[in-house]
Amino acid sequence: MRSRLLLFFALLTAGTSFGQDSLMFRKISDEIMLHSNCYNNLRVLCKRVGHRISGSPEAAKAVLWGEDAMKEAGADKVWLQAADVPYFYRGKESLELNIGGKYEYVQALSLGNSQGTGGKPLKAEIILVHNFDELKALPDEQVKGKIVFFDYRFRQDFIFTFQGYGDAVRYRGGGPSAAARKGAVGIIIRSMSTGEDDFPHTGGTHYNDSFAKVPAMALGNKTSDRLEKALAKEPVSAIMTSECHMMPKMVRSYNVIGEIKGTETPEQIITVGGHLDSWDVGEGATDDGAGCVQAIEIIRAMKALGMKPKCTIRAVLFMNEENGQKGGQAYADSAIAKNEQHVIAIESDAGGFSPRGIGLVMSDQQKNKIKSYKDLFLPYGVYDFSREEGGSDIEPIHDKKKVPLAGLIPDSQRYFDLHHTNNDTFEQVNHRELSLGAVVMAQLIYLVSEHGLN
Amino acid sequence: MRSRLLLFFALLTAGTSFGQDSLMFRKISDEIMLHSNCYNNLRVLCKRVGHRISGSPEAAKAVLWGEDAMKEAGADKVWLQAADVPYFYRGKESLELNIGGKYEYVQALSLGNSQGTGGKPLKAEIILVHNFDELKALPDEQVKGKIVFFDYRFRQDFIFTFQGYGDAVRYRGGGPSAAARKGAVGIIIRSMSTGEDDFPHTGGTHYNDSFAKVPAMALGNKTSDRLEKALAKEPVSAIMTSECHMMPKMVRSYNVIGEIKGTETPEQIITVGGHLDSWDVGEGATDDGAGCVQAIEIIRAMKALGMKPKCTIRAVLFMNEENGQKGGQAYADSAIAKNEQHVIAIESDAGGFSPRGIGLVMSDQQKNKIKSYKDLFLPYGVYDFSREEGGSDIEPIHDKKKVPLAGLIPDSQRYFDLHHTNNDTFEQVNHRELSLGAVVMAQLIYLVSEHGLN
Repeated sequence: MRSRLLLFFALLTAGTSFGQDSLMFRKISDEIMLHSNCYNNLRVLCKRVGHRISGSPEAAKAVLWGEDAMKEAGADKVWLQAADVPYFYRGKESLELNIGGKYEYVQALSLGNSQGTGGKPLKAEIILVHNFDELKALPDEQVKGKIVFFDYRFRQDFIFTFQGYGDAVRYRGGGPSAAARKGAVGIIIRSMSTGEDDFPHTGGTHYNDSFAKVPAMALGNKTSDRLEKALAKEPVSAIMTSECHMMPKMVRSYNVIGEIKGTETPEQIITVGGHLDSWDVGEGATDDGAGCVQAIEIIRAMKALGMKPKCTIRAVLFMNEENGQKGGQAYADSAIAKNEQHVIAIESDAGGFSPRGIGLVMSDQQKNKIKSYKDLFLPYGVYDFSREEGGSDIEPIHDKKKVPLAGLIPDSQRYFDLHHTNNDTFEQVNHRELSLGAVVMAQLIYLVSEHGLN
Repeated sequence: MRSRLLLFFALLTAGTSFGQDSLMFRKISDEIMLHSNCYNNLRVLCKRVGHRISGSPEAAKAVLWGEDAMKEAGADKVWLQAADVPYFYRGKESLELNIGGKYEYVQALSLGNSQGTGGKPLKAEIILVHNFDELKALPDEQVKGKIVFFDYRFRQDFIFTFQGYGDAVRYRGGGPSAAARKGAVGIIIRSMSTGEDDFPHTGGTHYNDSFAKVPAMALGNKTSDRLEKALAKEPVSAIMTSECHMMPKMVRSYNVIGEIKGTETPEQIITVGGHLDSWDVGEGATDDGAGCVQAIEIIRAMKALGMKPKCTIRAVLFMNEENGQKGGQAYADSAIAKNEQHVIAIESDAGGFSPRGIGLVMSDQQKNKIKSYKDLFLPYGVYDFSREEGGSDIEPIHDKKKVPLAGLIPDSQRYFDLHHTNNDTFEQVNHRELSLGAVVMAQLIYLVSEHGLN
C-alpha cells in the first residue's frame, strides 16, 4: 500500500513538473515565434558583413557585429576570447576546359586550404576516376603530369544527407594527396553536392606532407556531368589558374561570448553556440550564420521572458570551425585553465531548417533523461533523439573535459544544395524554420538548467 | 504451449513480412531519390504552362500536359474525366493609398471569386478593424460608404501553420459580406501570410447573396503594417480599380487520370492525387503542382520497379480545387455511377516540402493498422499520424462513398509564405523534399495494396 502511495505521489509530482515544463515550452515558443530577432540578425550579418573566412577582415568585422548583437540581446556580460587562426587567401582563380576542341571558362572553386598555381596557368590533360580504387589501379605513368578528376557522386539515396556527405567528403579531403602520390599535377572534384544545379562547393582539403601540394578545384554537378560526357568521347585538357594559398602567419581572432548568470548554481555552465566564420563564398547564412543568430536569440528570449536560469547560460559564436577548430579549442582550453564546470554544450551547425531532432553525445543514462522529455518536444516537430551528433566546435570540450554534447538536427534535405557555395545566402533561410531551431534549443537549455542532466 | 507456438509463428511471419516491407520501402525510396522525374515535370508545368486557374486557356494547356506526362510515366491507361468548372477572370487591377497625403500604388491582389469595380476607380476612406467583433461593435454609419481594412494577423505562434491559416482565413472568406452588411463599399484584408515580405495572397472569397458584392483586395504584410501605422495617425483613402468577375458560363474542363491495373484485385482502387488548377498568380508550384508531379512519379516509379500491385492504382490530377471542387465531385460521382470499389484515396496538397506525417480520415481500426507500420516510415522522416487531414479533392468521395482518406503532411513552415502568391514558383521547391513526398505516398500505397486496410 505504502509503495502504491509513493508511486501515486511520484506520478503526481512528475505530472505537475511535466505540466509546468510544458507551459514553459509554450512560453519559450510563443516568445520566439512572435518576437524573434533571428531573421533580422541574420540579414545584417549576411548583407553587411557577408562571407567571413577566419583571419580575414570580414571575420574581424563579424566579431564586432557579434559583440554588438549579443549586447543588444541583453546578455549580462559579453566578452571576446582570443584564438589564433589560420588564414586561407583565395585571390583570383579560373578553370578552362577544352570541351569540343575549344577552351571555355567554367564555374569552379578552389578547395579551401589548397595551394593554387601561383597565379600561373597550369595546363594538363584530365584523367577521370570514379573513386580511390580506380585511381590506385591505374599505372603511375597514366596519372603522371595529369589532372585527376574525381567523379564521385553524392549518394542521393541516403535520406539523411549528412550520411551522403560523410561518404563523399573523403575525395575533397584526401583527393589531392592521393593523386599527387601517383604523380598528378592537380585535381578536380565533383562537388559534395545534392544540387540539381551548377554551384561548385568549396570546403577544406588536407595535404599529406609526403607528396606535392597540388592545386585542387571543385566543379558543380552540371559541369561535372558535361566533363564526364566529354571524357567518354575524347581527351579533355584543362587550364587551372589560381592564386590561393595559406597566409604565412596565424591571425589573432576571437570567439564572441554572451552570458546570463545563473541564479542558483552559477558555477554550472550550459553552452550553446554556432560558428561565426564561414568559407569565403556566398554569405555563410546556412553555414553557420543560422547557428549564431539562434544562440543570440536564446539570450534575447530568456531575458525577454524574465527567466532566471539556475545555471549560467553562455551563447558562444565560435571562430574558425571551417579550417582549424581553433575557437573550439580555445574555449575548451580556457574551461580547463579556469576549472569551469560545464553541464552540457549544444551546437547548431546543420542549417537553419525545421528542427527534427537533437543529437546526443553523452552517457546512456543522460540520453535517457533527455529522451524522457520527448513528448514535450513532439509538438515542436522534434522526435529524433537517435543520432550521436554534437558539433565540431564543442568536440574539444567533450574530448578534453568529457562534457556531454547535444547537436540540433534540422531537416537535412536542402543543406548540401547550399553548403560552401555562392548560393549559401540569406534568401535561402526561412524565418520560421530558423526561429523554430532557436525554440528547441532554448527548451532543451531550460530543461537541463532546471532539472540537471543526471 | 500451443498458444506459445502460435505466438512464435505469428511473430515469425510478422517479422518476415515487416522485413520484406522494409526492403520494398527501401527499393521505392532508392528508385525515386535516384531517378525521380518529379522535379523536371514540375519545371515544365511551371515554366511552360505557368499558373492555371480553372476554366482558363492555361488550365486547358495543363490538362494536355498532364495527359502527356501521365503517358510518359508509363500508366497502363490514361483518360480525361469531364468536369464543368467556374472561371474567375482577373483582368487589370490596382490599389492606390494616400499615405502621407499623396496617392501611391501598392502591391495588392483581388480576392478570388470577387466582383471588381467594373474597371472604374472606387474611391473611399478606409476604416480599420482587427476582427469581426470590432466591426460588429461599430455603428453602421461609421462603416457606410467606407472600405473596411481587416487587419487580422496570421498567428505565428501555431507551429503547424495550417492551424494559423484555419484561424485567419475567415476574414478572406467572410470579410466582404460582413462589411457589406454594414454598408461598406469594399474591403481590404491583411493577407493570410506568414511571410516577412510584401507578397499579397489571393484565394477564394464567398459572397452572401443577401448583401452587396463589394470588391475585395489583399495586401502583403509590409503594406499592411504601413497602412496600420498610417491609420493610427490620420485618415487614409484608397482608390480600388479592378476588372475581376466570374465569367457568366461554366467551362468544360477535365481531371487527368492515369492508371496501373491491379493484378489480383483490379476492381479495388487506390487513388492518389493532387490538383492541377491553381490561382491565377505565380506558377502554382507549391499549390499544387507538387502534388500533381508526385502522383505522376508514383506511376513512373512503380512501373520502373516492375511492381505488380494487387489493387488498381490511379493517379488523379484534379481540376478546380481552388474555387469549386468540381473535379473532386466529378470523380466521386463517377465512382458512384460505376459502383467502383475504392480502398483509400490519398492527396498531396500541402506543398512539396519534407514529409513529416500522414493524415488519416478513417475508422480507428484502419488508423491503427496504418500506425502499426510507423517504424517502417520513420527512416523517411515520417512520424506523425495524429492529424485528421485528407484533401479537398478527395473529400467528396469520402462524403459520398465513405472512402477512407489519407493526406500527406509535409513540413508546414514555408507553405503560407508562398500560398496563392506570385512567389509560388518552381524555384521555391526543393528537388529532394519533393521526391521524398512521392516516396512516402508510394510506400503507403504499396502497404495498402499489399496488406489491405482492414
